[in-house]
Formats: sequence, structure tokens, C-alpha cells
Amino acid sequence: MSYEAKLKEMGYTIEPVPLDNGKFVLAARTGNLVYTAGCVPNWEGKSIQGKVGSDLTVEEGYEAARLATLSCLQAIKSVIGSLDNIVRIVKVFGMVNVAPGFDNTPGVIHGCSDLLREVFGEAGLHARSAIGLTVPFNHAVEIELIAEVK
Amino acid sequence: MSYEAKLKEMGYTIEPVPLDNGKFVLAARTGNLVYTAGCVPNWEGKSIQGKVGSDLTVEEGYEAARLATLSCLQAIKSVIGSLDNIVRIVKVFGMVNVAPGFDNTPGVIHGCSDLLREVFGEAGLHARSAIGLTVPFNHAVEIELIAEVK
Amino acid sequence: MSYEAKLKEMGYTIEPVPLDNGKFVLAARTGNLVYTAGCVPNWEGKSIQGKVGSDLTVEEGYEAARLATLSCLQAIKSVIGSLDNIVRIVKVFGMVNVAPGFDNTPGVIHGCSDLLREVFGEAGLHARSAIGLTVPFNHAVEIELIAEVK
Repeated sequence: MSYEAKLKEMGYTIEPVPLDNGKFVLAARTGNLVYTAGCVPNWEGKSIQGKVGSDLTVEEGYEAARLATLSCLQAIKSVIGSLDNIVRIVKVFGMVNVAPGFDNTPGVIHGCSDLLREVFGEAGLHARSAIGLTVPFNHAVEIELIAEVK
Repeated sequence: MSYEAKLKEMGYTIEPVPLDNGKFVLAARTGNLVYTAGCVPNWEGKSIQGKVGSDLTVEEGYEAARLATLSCLQAIKSVIGSLDNIVRIVKVFGMVNVAPGFDNTPGVIHGCSDLLREVFGEAGLHARSAIGLTVPFNHAVEIELIAEVK
Repeated sequence: MSYEAKLKEMGYTIEPVPLDNGKFVLAARTGNLVYTAGCVPNWEGKSIQGKVGSDLTVEEGYEAARLATLSCLQAIKSVIGSLDNIVRIVKVFGMVNVAPGFDNTPGVIHGCSDLLREVFGEAGLHARSAIGLTVPFNHAVEIELIAEVK
């Protein structure tokens, strides 16, 4: 099954969006690599904000990571036309908006990794970091992807 | 107008510097990509230090991001000889030295993005993250660029 | 001397490991680049945990960075077969698990840079950032490498 079909089957419709927000672009291509901007959990009108470990549970952070990943895929699609042009997801940099003392950031970013494996299979196997810091405007997570594309 | 000429017109003289500081290099090339080290706001004897949100305002952080970007361009020039060999600025990773509770990190890193757009136009359109953490030696910001070069 | 022989002479045996941990991979190749995951100081049964600046000294952080770098090299070897296939270490992203107020993160990540220079010589000269944030599960550091390979 194509990646686009798989996402549709999972209930997600990924539509291209304007890349330039006036300051930067949501994704940029160089050679066969596409780098996304840091994407936050804003998806179909749903936004997840707060510090994981105080305002939010790991499970809520996990869901936020899933939504942010969909935003990343949308950004990539906006550059390459179809997600079926992805050869491999190479790298994930997962940034979690953490409360002091919270360090189960991998448990949060699994929401990204699990989605990528589910959609892309072998081609979704990525190197990853998952760390805690301050995300803009209190978004629960921010995720960057690097994808190899056709 | 060439990028070098544009920078000169804006009042900035970018001169090459020694790349190796004894521990790491200020920028490294692989293929057509140049990765800068994290650059801090040290420019022509001016340094900006402090936590944005307590010691420094967003506007001061913005100026710091501008200076750090000039340092990044200096590092790139030191690898490729002339900034006119830049094809595109692909990626910005903007790290802001934040006070607890401050999360308008995009407002700070706009100082980088605005400069890149002003100098490079379309070729300055980059993917970006802007997050808050602890920058070395209390510098206000630290910025990494990835540039595609000729 | 080969890089593999040099490491052996220094007392380090780098053996390949399974890349896939069920969520992500320890390193991923695209073209001539290998990106490692964020590697933590777990080496031959030794683990270094704590906040640098309170639980740990800079010297202990430095040692942790050294061990994390060995884990990164192990991840790269697991992708390319032999570390002698490394052309250059291009980039280090050094993340230090900092106590509030501690900002000598370069002093910690020197443990990575010194090892890379010692093993790889000119080919070990990398661009670098060294910042402070929250590392997963209280590990003292987390390090990402990007290597150009044959």
C-alpha cells in the first residue's frame, strides 16, 4: 500500500499548505533531503499546550507528538507533492516542553516514532533524539524531521 | 546585487577567520552542504549575554540573534571563500538562553530569519526551529545554520 | 594507523550492535552521511547519570561525553561495517543534562571533541554545539554525530 493510502486508511488527510509563513518555510529541500521546520501539535483545529510532567501526562505528550508528526508530514508533502516520494525518514529531533524534574521524554516522542513505523514500515526507521527544553508558546512538543526523497 | 555587496551595503564586513579553535571547527563542509557550529552573539567587540525574559528583552534577544547570524555567515565564508557561493540557506536551529517562563523564542530568532531574508532573498528561505534552553557562558542565543553551496 | 587500530590501541573495542531498538535506529544512512541517534554514556556496563553542576562535576561530565561518543561510534560502525570507512566527522550536537545555573557545557562536550581529534586527526575536525537541557532518564549527556562515510 502507498504511504498516502495508508495515512488515509488511518483517518489522516494530509493536504499541502503554503510553505512560507513570512519568516521561514515549513520545509526546505536540498539535494535528496527535505528538512522540516520544528512542527508543533496543531492539527485540524486541535492544539496541545502545556508542560509535560505537570500540565500534561506522558500519554497526552505522546498524542501531541503524533499530531506534530502529522504537521511535519504535511510540510514535507508541500515540498515534494506526494508522500509516496519519500525514500526514508532519516532523522527525528524530538523536543518536549518539560516541567522541572520530568525526563521521560522518550515516552513522549514514541508518539512520533510509532506513527512513522506504522505509516512507512522499514522506510520509517529513523535515528532519533528526544530531549526536554522550552518549546515556543507553551506547545507540548516540537519535532523536526529529515527525510530522504526521490 | 551579490550577497557580499548586499551585506556591505547594510554596513557589515564579513571577513574570513581561522576555522579551528583547537577543539572543533566553526564550520565544516560535506558535499554541497556547510554546517556551522553553534554561533553566539560576538560581533566586532560587541557581546550580548544574559537570559532573555529576565536580563534581556525580546528586542535585545532579536539583536543578539542578528549578531550570531553574522558570526555564522563569517564561519561559512571561511569555508567557501565568498558568500556568493551560497545556493540556499537550508536550515536554522535557533537556541535561546531563556529565563524560566519565557517562551517567545520565535520573536528572538526572527532576528536571524529577517537578516537572512534581507541578504539572500529567495535563497534565504530556511526551515527553522527556535527553542529555549541553556546557552554556554550565558550568551543570549546560539544559532546553527546549514547552507547549500556551489 | 587505521581508526580501528587507533581505538584498539587506546583500549576501546568497538563492536557492532543491533541497530533497531523497536522504536528507532541507533544510526541511519542517507547518501554518504550517517546520522546517529542521541547517544548516552552507557559503555561496557558503566553508566553516568546526574545533573552536571550539582550531582556531577565538569570532569565527570567530560568523561560522560567521552563514553557517549564511543556509543556513537559503535552506532556508526553498525551501519558501515568498519570505522575506517569514515571520511570525516562533520557535526557534533552535544546536549548536557544541566543543573540550574550551570553553563560550562563546552567544558563537558570537550570530552567528545578531544576523543574525535585523538582518533581521527584531521578527519575528526567537526562543527559543534554544546548546550544545556534535560536529557532522558537523567543521563549526564546525550550526543549526536553526523559522519561523512565512504
